[in-house]
Amino acid sequence: MRNIIIASTSTLHDGSYLEYLLPTLQSHFENAKTILFIPYARPGGISHEDYTQKVRQAFSPLGISVTGIHEYDNPAEAITNAEALFTGGGNTFVLVTQLYKNNCMEALEITVKNGTPYLGTSAGSNICGLSMQTTNDMPIVYPPSFKTLGFVPFNINPHYLDPIAGSTHMGETRETRILEFHAYNNIPVVGLREGSWLEVKGNHVTLKGSLPARIFTAQHLPEEIAPESDLSTLGR
Amino acid sequence: MRNIIIASTSTLHDGSYLEYLLPTLQSHFENAKTILFIPYARPGGISHEDYTQKVRQAFSPLGISVTGIHEYDNPAEAITNAEALFTGGGNTFVLVTQLYKNNCMEALEITVKNGTPYLGTSAGSNICGLSMQTTNDMPIVYPPSFKTLGFVPFNINPHYLDPIAGSTHMGETRETRILEFHAYNNIPVVGLREGSWLEVKGNHVTLKGSLPARIFTAQHLPEEIAPESDLSTLGR
Repeated sequence: MRNIIIASTSTLHDGSYLEYLLPTLQSHFENAKTILFIPYARPGGISHEDYTQKVRQAFSPLGISVTGIHEYDNPAEAITNAEALFTGGGNTFVLVTQLYKNNCMEALEITVKNGTPYLGTSAGSNICGLSMQTTNDMPIVYPPSFKTLGFVPFNINPHYLDPIAGSTHMGETRETRILEFHAYNNIPVVGLREGSWLEVKGNHVTLKGSLPARIFTAQHLPEEIAPESDLSTLGR
Repeated sequence: MRNIIIASTSTLHDGSYLEYLLPTLQSHFENAKTILFIPYARPGGISHEDYTQKVRQAFSPLGISVTGIHEYDNPAEAITNAEALFTGGGNTFVLVTQLYKNNCMEALEITVKNGTPYLGTSAGSNICGLSMQTTNDMPIVYPPSFKTLGFVPFNINPHYLDPIAGSTHMGETRETRILEFHAYNNIPVVGLREGSWLEVKGNHVTLKGSLPARIFTAQHLPEEIAPESDLSTLGR
């Protein structure tokens, strides 16, 4: 049974790394003594080792130890053998390129489908959708494909941002970008605001956190949904 | 001799389409009676025909007629035969995919190098750089390559946006995204604010408009340059 948390962000403006999620992670990872961390997205170009160290410190209060996938000779095997999995944020193009290069995609799909608990934040959440095509990141490397894990039958837009009132900037708003996505694709998109996450238990998908989320489906007006809304039928 | 305008945006907040550029375009296109417009980037999913109509209206005060590249059976040949060229904004992934699909890249490279005047705005400016990897757009379609025209030996970031003072948003700033680009690439990047453009005459590149631009080079701190700065040596 799938057991997944898909979070918009790792960090809130007024908190430390993963702080707002810690109570949730305590129960999410209650049967795990160790987590395999996937640092491939490298926010700001940070090294795999430094990024893993940051995650190690964040999980230390929960009594959970953390290893980085880069420490293993066979990354796919490390995924298969993991007690629990966490993919951190950063650049989604870099993350997806590295996952394909290291043959991790299939191992992740199978392992998480079989019930190994998974946490994704930001780029690590983007890859839970059918494709990475609603990422906000710059295409700084060229991945072999935009197809991702499809843990849920829709796409994620993390760090969802409402239009800024009174802005004179003429670049596209986030909503406009997602509407353009729907000129070429039929996949529904969940705009997850910072502080929101999706809880996936088997086939049940629930919006968590205190904020509404914005749902975009092709040929329909966007829709706001309240916390605790059931998204189990979206994309099915 | 190359004769190119690379503009951050087509439209300013307080103006109509291309309005702020019209005096510049009058001299840029002084020897052209017709412009071939490339509407492939389709902002907001607008049709090629509607987008071309909008451009036709904007150039009508200059006495220049406009045809859309989609009206021709052989797009590459249309480019070669054009008196002048304009590629409009929209989604860079869509634009680049369509340019490759229709064998337009080589024709554009040769034609513009030979002196046919070119105007790019937004996505149409992104493709003037060595790669499209500093676009702000969502990857809504998968292009065969991120390599672009290289009219200038650096990359463009159009609609360059300064960090917003007091913002609590945790998604990356534009500057952070460009710094991440430089963790994987050595190509310099010009952050062009809305209202700025680059004028390329042969090998001379000059910043135009009333705003400074922000220059990012790998392993250096970003640098602000004033209007009328000479960028001819950047990337050489």
